Amino acid sequence: MEKAIAYIDANFENLVSDLKDYLRIPSISTLPDYEAEMLRAAQWTSERLQRAGIPHVEVVRTRGHPIVYGEWIVSGEAPTVLIYGHYDVQPADPLEAWDQDPFEPVIRDNHIVARGAADDKGQVYVNIAALEALHIAYGGALPVNIKILIEGEEEVGSSALATFVKENKDRLSADVIVISDTTMLSLDQPAISTSFRGMLYTELEVTGPAFDLHSGQHGGVVHNPIQALSEIIASLHNSDGSVAIDGFYDRVRTLSEQEKADLASLYSEDDFKAETGAPKSWGEEGYNLRERIVARPTLELNGIVGGWTGPGRKTVLPSKAIAKISCRLVPDQEPDEVEVLLRRRIQELTPPTVRSELRVLGMSKPIHLSADNRATRIAIEAYEKGFGVRPILMRKGGSLPIMSTFSDVFNVPIILAGYGLPSDRVHGPNERFHLECLRRGIATAIHLYQGLAKYKDS
Amino acid sequence: MEKAIAYIDANFENLVSDLKDYLRIPSISTLPDYEAEMLRAAQWTSERLQRAGIPHVEVVRTRGHPIVYGEWIVSGEAPTVLIYGHYDVQPADPLEAWDQDPFEPVIRDNHIVARGAADDKGQVYVNIAALEALHIAYGGALPVNIKILIEGEEEVGSSALATFVKENKDRLSADVIVISDTTMLSLDQPAISTSFRGMLYTELEVTGPAFDLHSGQHGGVVHNPIQALSEIIASLHNSDGSVAIDGFYDRVRTLSEQEKADLASLYSEDDFKAETGAPKSWGEEGYNLRERIVARPTLELNGIVGGWTGPGRKTVLPSKAIAKISCRLVPDQEPDEVEVLLRRRIQELTPPTVRSELRVLGMSKPIHLSADNRATRIAIEAYEKGFGVRPILMRKGGSLPIMSTFSDVFNVPIILAGYGLPSDRVHGPNERFHLECLRRGIATAIHLYQGLAKYKDS
Repeated sequence: MEKAIAYIDANFENLVSDLKDYLRIPSISTLPDYEAEMLRAAQWTSERLQRAGIPHVEVVRTRGHPIVYGEWIVSGEAPTVLIYGHYDVQPADPLEAWDQDPFEPVIRDNHIVARGAADDKGQVYVNIAALEALHIAYGGALPVNIKILIEGEEEVGSSALATFVKENKDRLSADVIVISDTTMLSLDQPAISTSFRGMLYTELEVTGPAFDLHSGQHGGVVHNPIQALSEIIASLHNSDGSVAIDGFYDRVRTLSEQEKADLASLYSEDDFKAETGAPKSWGEEGYNLRERIVARPTLELNGIVGGWTGPGRKTVLPSKAIAKISCRLVPDQEPDEVEVLLRRRIQELTPPTVRSELRVLGMSKPIHLSADNRATRIAIEAYEKGFGVRPILMRKGGSLPIMSTFSDVFNVPIILAGYGLPSDRVHGPNERFHLECLRRGIATAIHLYQGLAKYKDS
Repeated sequence: MEKAIAYIDANFENLVSDLKDYLRIPSISTLPDYEAEMLRAAQWTSERLQRAGIPHVEVVRTRGHPIVYGEWIVSGEAPTVLIYGHYDVQPADPLEAWDQDPFEPVIRDNHIVARGAADDKGQVYVNIAALEALHIAYGGALPVNIKILIEGEEEVGSSALATFVKENKDRLSADVIVISDTTMLSLDQPAISTSFRGMLYTELEVTGPAFDLHSGQHGGVVHNPIQALSEIIASLHNSDGSVAIDGFYDRVRTLSEQEKADLASLYSEDDFKAETGAPKSWGEEGYNLRERIVARPTLELNGIVGGWTGPGRKTVLPSKAIAKISCRLVPDQEPDEVEVLLRRRIQELTPPTVRSELRVLGMSKPIHLSADNRATRIAIEAYEKGFGVRPILMRKGGSLPIMSTFSDVFNVPIILAGYGLPSDRVHGPNERFHLECLRRGIATAIHLYQGLAKYKDS
């Protein structure tokens, strides 16, 4: 163990430089033009796993982006750990909001700054480096059997991976699943996540005239699609911040007073302001800030576009306007049921003066994990050793599409061993990963895989 | 006269081919990248005026885009006509909605199709061709003195031209002003316009968080700027279609019952559907369709943008969203007064959870012209000869920024001698100009300038 940690300390600069290479590949899964970069990132991942000592690594071609799968079975007796991460990243737009090229990583304020730094290449790298260090410490072996799955479609719904997992159930079987794609509370307060929200991602298009019109020649008699779309959007929330869709909350599990109080203690209005820079918090009345993020469903506007968006003026009355609308879901909401409710509400809100079309771009189920198992207790010890502080268990606001497949296909404990921070600006400009999260994360992962060696002992 | 008309008929194909060259220059005034094209279009205009026989033509450099000014004083006795048009065009976006390259003109269904075909290069060309034909018919002279002003900033507010006109009041002085930048009712019903709506063009930016956030990590506690902007937009109209801004209608002149009935007869719900392809008309209750377009003020959404607008998904909670909002104004509304009212309303509608900023991008005053003058009577006769049908007098829904300057600086009759059609799709994809409008328009302009030769006769 000492030897593995010593290896990391001695090689930390090289590891950072190597991670920078990984971050230079613009592996944006949602943009069709980046297919070659996706393959390049998959190949980089594969080669890096081999360099870390994993003997069997393959790049699996799929209908979508490639999956990287590595396997090292050291012994029939040892427990088997399935590790999951993803090499795909979100688009870097808006580019002008970055202080640098998003795919030319720089070190700033003790962070490595680049698209994908925290979500999720940095966290994938934590695991690869830990395996490499253990491999060296164990003289060419490992304390556990390792199966590692790094996919390229987490940001777009993990559809190819879900198929791959179902079709390779036996090959992928493990005693414990470890996922590194979450944040902790802070550098001084590590945390293990216990839940993900689900997601329904849609695109709503409102169409009025058959083509763009002159706003002087037809303004006043055409229901402007931007206005009609805005009117629909404005009617999707009530004035108390709740989502104005009949039945939306029917299946939402409510928290106990103790759980509410625990969440309230984690996040204040001052934390909110410092973290976001927004003038004032907003949201569903009757629920505290952290509770709204992790235990309440939301309806969010991810994008909108219509008419003239360039500099200056164009006096156009556009033929259509489009919004990207997503719902984050909590247990026991079902994405396909929510789709029906949203669709009905949009129809109800569409006036006869325009047409609307709702397209579903993806969905995933909400997941809440039990923490009452040996694997979680081992993970808690690993974090305590890696960060020097006992971690808390924490619900998450984000979503991980493959979770429900893992949960349905494999009946084993899942550990959400994430190493990011809430201030990492994931999905936004200047995304970053704290170098201490990298260093302590690798140490934690070393302790985790070492600790899991004893998983089968009674 | 016969000779001038015969010249047009004999040379019509060459004239169309020449107009196509004009339309190939992408003179988009609002986009900074097109500065060189603007100069090229100005130079083309200047050379074409010289080819038409105008002896003194200059390209005047300004703070903005160049102005082309041509002058031919044939006699101190003859009346002087100041002709106005513009060589700048609107952006061609969305390009994918065109059936062709917008700057590679084609002839389709008896129309010349290209950006600027009707607005306004085709109408500028009508006047140039008419001057050329008269020049030939008169053996190298003209029936009237001509001053011709073709500017490059009509679509962005005519700021440089307003300065030029004020600074060159004496040089530009004329007995009659002729402006060709309007539409008629149909090919079978020519029309002379008598009014323009004014305009207030603004950009509203709503900002929430200081940078883009992850919609899972912060969704539910941040007032999403797209949602906040949509809520503001949705509150700018009442449910009866009227503009929900206190005082907005205070200065609006109401029409007589006769005027309302006349306008109602011009435009039906069926006309609306055929012209726009929208499922149903919309607008201010209590006013007929045509009345809403030409005699009522509007508030229109010309564009909106925020967050992810690319293909597929990005689960971003954007830091800001922007809308382009313009008001068309009617007598006696004042743009700067309406700005104050709109600004106050936006402030009132901005919740404490976001910030908003309203930027004014341009304004122009509404104009209503008297038709009770000799120049208008001469124009009516010219249309009757050119189109074979007596023209009607008609209010317009569009705006022409330089109008109020002309009206303030020169106390002379202004004739809005336009030759476009409502189906020309100006400002939209597949903009076009009917070849019969071109042919009959040139004939009408020949008769008009010929007729104005007798303007000073009592």
